[in-house]
Amino acid sequence: MAINVVIAGPRGKMGSEAVKMVLNEEDFRLVACIDRKNDGKTLNSIISSVDATVPIYDDIETCLDQQKEVDVLVELSVPEAGYKHTKCAINHGIRPVVGTTGFTENQLAELDELAKKQNIGCIIAPNFAIGAVLMMKFAKMAASYFPDVDIIEKHHDNKLDAPSGTAIKTAELISENRTVKQQGHPEEKETLTGARGADVDGMKVHSIRLPGLVAHQEVIFGSAGQTLTIKHDSIDRASFMDGVKFCIERVLESKGLTYGLENIL
Amino acid sequence: MAINVVIAGPRGKMGSEAVKMVLNEEDFRLVACIDRKNDGKTLNSIISSVDATVPIYDDIETCLDQQKEVDVLVELSVPEAGYKHTKCAINHGIRPVVGTTGFTENQLAELDELAKKQNIGCIIAPNFAIGAVLMMKFAKMAASYFPDVDIIEKHHDNKLDAPSGTAIKTAELISENRTVKQQGHPEEKETLTGARGADVDGMKVHSIRLPGLVAHQEVIFGSAGQTLTIKHDSIDRASFMDGVKFCIERVLESKGLTYGLENIL
Amino acid sequence: MAINVVIAGPRGKMGSEAVKMVLNEEDFRLVACIDRKNDGKTLNSIISSVDATVPIYDDIETCLDQQKEVDVLVELSVPEAGYKHTKCAINHGIRPVVGTTGFTENQLAELDELAKKQNIGCIIAPNFAIGAVLMMKFAKMAASYFPDVDIIEKHHDNKLDAPSGTAIKTAELISENRTVKQQGHPEEKETLTGARGADVDGMKVHSIRLPGLVAHQEVIFGSAGQTLTIKHDSIDRASFMDGVKFCIERVLESKGLTYGLENIL
Amino acid sequence: MAINVVIAGPRGKMGSEAVKMVLNEEDFRLVACIDRKNDGKTLNSIISSVDATVPIYDDIETCLDQQKEVDVLVELSVPEAGYKHTKCAINHGIRPVVGTTGFTENQLAELDELAKKQNIGCIIAPNFAIGAVLMMKFAKMAASYFPDVDIIEKHHDNKLDAPSGTAIKTAELISENRTVKQQGHPEEKETLTGARGADVDGMKVHSIRLPGLVAHQEVIFGSAGQTLTIKHDSIDRASFMDGVKFCIERVLESKGLTYGLENIL
Repeated sequence: MAINVVIAGPRGKMGSEAVKMVLNEEDFRLVACIDRKNDGKTLNSIISSVDATVPIYDDIETCLDQQKEVDVLVELSVPEAGYKHTKCAINHGIRPVVGTTGFTENQLAELDELAKKQNIGCIIAPNFAIGAVLMMKFAKMAASYFPDVDIIEKHHDNKLDAPSGTAIKTAELISENRTVKQQGHPEEKETLTGARGADVDGMKVHSIRLPGLVAHQEVIFGSAGQTLTIKHDSIDRASFMDGVKFCIERVLESKGLTYGLENIL
Repeated sequence: MAINVVIAGPRGKMGSEAVKMVLNEEDFRLVACIDRKNDGKTLNSIISSVDATVPIYDDIETCLDQQKEVDVLVELSVPEAGYKHTKCAINHGIRPVVGTTGFTENQLAELDELAKKQNIGCIIAPNFAIGAVLMMKFAKMAASYFPDVDIIEKHHDNKLDAPSGTAIKTAELISENRTVKQQGHPEEKETLTGARGADVDGMKVHSIRLPGLVAHQEVIFGSAGQTLTIKHDSIDRASFMDGVKFCIERVLESKGLTYGLENIL
Repeated sequence: MAINVVIAGPRGKMGSEAVKMVLNEEDFRLVACIDRKNDGKTLNSIISSVDATVPIYDDIETCLDQQKEVDVLVELSVPEAGYKHTKCAINHGIRPVVGTTGFTENQLAELDELAKKQNIGCIIAPNFAIGAVLMMKFAKMAASYFPDVDIIEKHHDNKLDAPSGTAIKTAELISENRTVKQQGHPEEKETLTGARGADVDGMKVHSIRLPGLVAHQEVIFGSAGQTLTIKHDSIDRASFMDGVKFCIERVLESKGLTYGLENIL
Repeated sequence: MAINVVIAGPRGKMGSEAVKMVLNEEDFRLVACIDRKNDGKTLNSIISSVDATVPIYDDIETCLDQQKEVDVLVELSVPEAGYKHTKCAINHGIRPVVGTTGFTENQLAELDELAKKQNIGCIIAPNFAIGAVLMMKFAKMAASYFPDVDIIEKHHDNKLDAPSGTAIKTAELISENRTVKQQGHPEEKETLTGARGADVDGMKVHSIRLPGLVAHQEVIFGSAGQTLTIKHDSIDRASFMDGVKFCIERVLESKGLTYGLENIL
């Protein structure tokens, strides 16, 4: 039997990919979308490449009151609406799979309690790319055995911040398992400032920015005679859809709030 | 307090590296060696680069009867002696860390029972390179999420067999978690035979042989918009010593037989 | 002063990228397009993302008769029209930059002679990706010094042929400089058929096909103690536009036919 | 007919590799060595792994006066002796292949003139690793087409200086062809200092230091939709011997001084 899905944010970058994915998967059925702008229209009238006549609602309450057989809400709209949509779904006994960010600690605790009361699952994932999450998970595991590690992240040259959020998150996860040490030779000298990269507890982070790149990261662990490298290359937003699909299936079996894909992979 | 170690096979490729490692580690103390050829001599007289006057025995029984404070036997001699040395150590209440191969299923079962009776641990590891074992472990884990995977192994051009044993072992581990599928386009054509590599349950294995290489492997998982790569590069036998060291420490805390580093990493 | 450009094939994959590029470059001016379907219309009426009111002609003769100040024809239509368009341009004293394929040896000789008579340049390039052409050029150069080489090409899993055309072309170029030898150990054995890849004069070619890949190739040369790797990663058709731009500038300075970007890089 | 070779510095790191290489090559014959310490002895008496009874001289004049059929001097001793050995060889009509560093501009000019007068060749090469020299040469060539480039060099963690000399040399060569530009987004921010690496004319250089690495460098060029990477991995001093061998053969055909392998590759 198909899993019935409502998607919030169907015109967004992630949301439009999710629409395509849900329509293409045999086991999923798209029953409605939530879009603050296009109440009463059908999906094909607002996204020309889609030919599904799925109804659009601007109000989630109305949507979930009218659509009686929804299993999962995929929430990919905007931070301002994320909490309201997620809470409303749980109150209707519908499991949320949420990519929206900006939840407070209190909101997360409340949603967890609410989901448990309803005896259903709820997954909130800041990063749906299974490959990226596995890279971080493996890096954290390897850090127990190899205290020497460099992170090299590579992105397109329009990126403003260096290092990337993923690189910083990876360094934090590694730090949980790594024996702290100052890497490199104690007397090493930078003849050109910055050559050795950024320092996080003695480990090093390097940011490459070039046209022709999208989003890439490699984590290199070294010990006598060997290196172990874990690398993720992402070239397309489609890379997030495997994770959304995985969560739609998993949320049906889980109870309470799961925060972060790494906790169910 | 130091861990007292006996090494069997001190003149071998692995054994001589282990001698160096144990002598260099502050927390380890080398108390004797087992060598079928040099009974009664001291280590410095048979390995010129070592200045330790550690006694050498050709018979393990005599050694373990005379040396009263041994904690761990590191067995790196030859398959013919491995079983006898390991069993003798357990009988003396000494934990074996074994790199020798060639144990039968019955022998493994017997050693497990014996170790449990003595209430001590015993570790037998066909591969001590922590990086290689983690690569295989991570590849197996990732295979649950990504059924599309290619293994590329690269070795020096004097290697006789292709694919490498590690590549075959990796493919087997991946198969335990991977949804079987025939990869590539159903109608793909090899215009040059062999281009698509060897086939294992629909996944592909490629063997590169070139001078200038030592022992390298990468496992590449692909899904829409992303790839995840796990890569191990080994350039020196020193890469095994991290694993031997790790096992010497771990065997003190374990009970019964552990077969394979992957089960304690 | 700007270079005045006419583009043939503005609705094609390459042509539409070329339209964007020419419109964005300060030094180029798009004066007309050739399109067999939309005679008399303007560009903005057939490509919604473009706001240029450039006239469209279905006949190149008429176009070049009316447009008096054209410097370069960028021919990216279809093989059937390529020869006619190129010849017509040269007859009008306009330099062609051609990405269309399918020219015969006789046609190439004729176009060369014609261009020389007009004292103008003409560039026909089967591959406009400067990075890919440099990879092949460098691989050919390196082959003079390193007879041991493996080619690993990686593409998306919808590709039908293996190895890729670029890999075969690279092997051919390498063969021009490489001392022929059978690589690997003389007694090496494939325990799984195909592991060692396809054989071209003793060198090896490996084809990876995975979702998440686009078009990638690495050429690895090995000799005692070292490897040299030349790698090209292409993720987008935009990669061809650097080459088209380069040719538009170069064709103004050249005389006669240049076939292949490698001869002017 | 074999090429007769004299090696200066047979006990050094490079020299001892050169001894092995010359003895192993069928077309080369080792006729004598220059060593300030072991005058009158034979090679096998000072290097135990060699069984050649080649005579050793402490004075190059005496050596070249007595040995009548020397074709090439391979000079791998120490900077203090390099100039004297090279000049003496040329004066005897013997072609020098020199890896020693520390020559002044004046000395180079004098040696060039001297070699031309004798109508023979002389090659002085600060780096004999053909792969590394080709990497630099290709990087310089590619820089004409791609102004966006990052250099990532990776070395063992006992290295004191960052970036490596090869990385600095590569950046200098790239600068000869590259259009100067400040890479990355004009408003990019380092949230961790050093993340973006060292800056050389707007291009970036990153230095990785980890145990398990030896000497590696990759040069990555990026442009819209593509990257081109040139990578050299060196794991053993044997990597220099291909270049020494190449120079021994080439110096016989050249006239005057050649400085740098890049000028004859």
